[in-house]
Amino acid sequence: MPETKILLSEQEIPTHWYNIAADMPNRPAPPLNPATGEPIGPEALAAIFPMALIEQEVSSERWIEIPEAVREMYRMWRPSPLYRAHRLEKALDTPARIYYKYEGVSPAGSHKLNTAIPQVYYNKQAGIRRIATETGAGQWGSALSMACQFFGLACTVYMVKVSYQQKPYRRILMSTFGAEVIPSPSDRTEAGRKILAEHPDSLGSLGIAISEAVEDAASRADTNYALGSVLNHVCLHQTVIGLEAKKQMEKAGDYPDVVIGCCGGGSNFAGIAFPFLYDRLTQGKQVRAVAVEPEACPTLTRGKFAYDFGDTAQLTPMLQMYTLGHTFMPSGIHAGGLRYHGDSPLVSQLYHDGLIEAVAYNQTAIFEAAVQFARAEGIVPAPESAHAVRAAIDEALRAKEAGEARVILFGLSGHGHFDLAAYEAYLSGDLQDVPLSEEALAAGLAELPKVGG
Amino acid sequence: MPETKILLSEQEIPTHWYNIAADMPNRPAPPLNPATGEPIGPEALAAIFPMALIEQEVSSERWIEIPEAVREMYRMWRPSPLYRAHRLEKALDTPARIYYKYEGVSPAGSHKLNTAIPQVYYNKQAGIRRIATETGAGQWGSALSMACQFFGLACTVYMVKVSYQQKPYRRILMSTFGAEVIPSPSDRTEAGRKILAEHPDSLGSLGIAISEAVEDAASRADTNYALGSVLNHVCLHQTVIGLEAKKQMEKAGDYPDVVIGCCGGGSNFAGIAFPFLYDRLTQGKQVRAVAVEPEACPTLTRGKFAYDFGDTAQLTPMLQMYTLGHTFMPSGIHAGGLRYHGDSPLVSQLYHDGLIEAVAYNQTAIFEAAVQFARAEGIVPAPESAHAVRAAIDEALRAKEAGEARVILFGLSGHGHFDLAAYEAYLSGDLQDVPLSEEALAAGLAELPKVGG
Repeated sequence: MPETKILLSEQEIPTHWYNIAADMPNRPAPPLNPATGEPIGPEALAAIFPMALIEQEVSSERWIEIPEAVREMYRMWRPSPLYRAHRLEKALDTPARIYYKYEGVSPAGSHKLNTAIPQVYYNKQAGIRRIATETGAGQWGSALSMACQFFGLACTVYMVKVSYQQKPYRRILMSTFGAEVIPSPSDRTEAGRKILAEHPDSLGSLGIAISEAVEDAASRADTNYALGSVLNHVCLHQTVIGLEAKKQMEKAGDYPDVVIGCCGGGSNFAGIAFPFLYDRLTQGKQVRAVAVEPEACPTLTRGKFAYDFGDTAQLTPMLQMYTLGHTFMPSGIHAGGLRYHGDSPLVSQLYHDGLIEAVAYNQTAIFEAAVQFARAEGIVPAPESAHAVRAAIDEALRAKEAGEARVILFGLSGHGHFDLAAYEAYLSGDLQDVPLSEEALAAGLAELPKVGG
Repeated sequence: MPETKILLSEQEIPTHWYNIAADMPNRPAPPLNPATGEPIGPEALAAIFPMALIEQEVSSERWIEIPEAVREMYRMWRPSPLYRAHRLEKALDTPARIYYKYEGVSPAGSHKLNTAIPQVYYNKQAGIRRIATETGAGQWGSALSMACQFFGLACTVYMVKVSYQQKPYRRILMSTFGAEVIPSPSDRTEAGRKILAEHPDSLGSLGIAISEAVEDAASRADTNYALGSVLNHVCLHQTVIGLEAKKQMEKAGDYPDVVIGCCGGGSNFAGIAFPFLYDRLTQGKQVRAVAVEPEACPTLTRGKFAYDFGDTAQLTPMLQMYTLGHTFMPSGIHAGGLRYHGDSPLVSQLYHDGLIEAVAYNQTAIFEAAVQFARAEGIVPAPESAHAVRAAIDEALRAKEAGEARVILFGLSGHGHFDLAAYEAYLSGDLQDVPLSEEALAAGLAELPKVGG
């Protein structure tokens, strides 16, 4: 009988990351100085990033070598398994063949460790002793805490307050790995103090937490900043997911008609999708890529393609991307990792150019899919990952209607072991959909900076 | 460089379980009727177990075939990885080579699913529609809930109240898989009501919860009982762990000097150790096996080798085993899965015959080891599994003192994702050791039934 898990050996961990910028018909527009609106060069980022990462950020090289020390650490859990969802297919009674690449086997429980490790590695090489970052759902913070512990760097995490309250286990996990965890907005930074003065009950947002972490990093010479998504080098590091998945699909003797990933800042989606888009961009291969986001924070499906700040306090460079506006405050849905106002410039440009698709779901729909998936496959997905599960199930149901044996690959970016309170809310009927407020959307979009006339 | 993970293919999942009863110099004494004190035959167990499991319970066949349907379900996560603990070795600066077999990759998060699946399978074959069980830390309950969901059976779990309160996530996990979860002692059974009448604030114990589940199962024709440890057939099913580990050690070109497992009811220890003891019993191979238990519930190290009941209400047959007395009430330590007054008759007999060793630790010592392990290897161990980590680290430190390159293999039976509240208590300095009360010990031993003279 066919394998349930398609595995690779440690020797098959990719030796290079794939940089999609090399193959895009239109490369993302350059970042702009937040004060002057002029294009900025790499040197402007040197206050908070090591040069190796800045070079990756602007590189047009197609393949970028993964340092041996990083590959060695990847061996802790990589290559991650690719599963054939035999039992889910049966439950759905679909002719579709469903595969999922499971990143929850990482000790941090999600794909985030794929970039945390190289980021900390390059910072250590550059002599940095401490890293400041933000975290939404806590997955990025957990991953960075681990990576810092493995390389012996100190770590401070500004954690969006609503997640800090909803997900104590994630906070404890970070503490277990030696990190300092601060609920954001906090009184540790000027950005935080400003928000607290205006909104003492603020539940925070990724945009605010980023401002705090960037301010912290910029104000100390021994400290750099690390971002868990959005930026080009983060998307780059995540391509190990899709590169492995391609080898595994080949081993399974299959090729996806559609690749699906949840999309907040975009790095998870980039990780699973970009290596397949390589086939489309360079060989004209017909493969669809679908980014899945929450209705409550519908960056691609309802946002504007425009220059915007990455953070609330307007400290970061402006990036051209799909955005709901840097002041947009998403409601407190359980998929905290998808509550970001903007999206990766790489993903945004691809969407703008019609090379990828996007779809948005409400949270009750994604938890319904998550429970169905768990009961069939045993794995309880993170709420973020459940967005991809929902889209994959819907795709499989459409294949059933059409009577087509479509091949579906989705990224299961992490497990939901620290999100069970959300499952309890869903199972007890207490979980509500939080419709997007059209007012909040309009207000956010009205705050977009005026750039270039 | 050498592999970090030694993996097997799905084809290498064992085809047979190993039954150590076939090779023991002294087989366990027969179970006795709780009322008459006479040896009981298999038929006496038929009210609560299917015949296939009763046959395994009394079998003297060395190898027992694993049904294909069970092996197919094992493929969801088996073979589990064997890790070489390179980073821990380095942190300890030890010449020892440390390996661990990681059962936390199971969707239930522990080794328990290895036996939950065959138990539910045989019950389904026998026409049973519902299973009642108890759970301590919640690992067994989670595993049985999943297995019941996979095979379409209903599941009721009596969960020891202290764990029900300490580990809400485990409870939610069981609900996610469709099980009914009841804090024990409860008013659903006579056994529960009796305890509540005497001790309204009782935090429960495995002994009480077993009474409740057995009573539930015995009173309904469509319902059987399932036990997550102690019994011979449970130890049998767990031998997939050690059988895989042997193949993996061989692949690594190594053989353990010592095999270490945590020991509550004994099935986890049996699973990792029995296949290596096979080499010792049949080929005289020099391999030590060490069972690790909590100081607060030191069954092997402080208990008596005697006939005793498996439960508080004296509903189960009497088994000859190491026991602290069926009325012994262990304190509320975080390793809830090790709070059982008795021990597997197979493990007990081997200990009595000097074929295995045992050691006990306090909980601060095991959390110290767990945090050290997590920071080196990335995996946060369950508090139960942390007992094995502690013993393995101590063994490695002794090897360092002796300047010997000892080979240490330990079973990492599960992850601690649902136990982070305990980690927080440890990290904040709030965790206390709970010394064994000599009075409680004496009182428990005084309640041992008088059997055979």
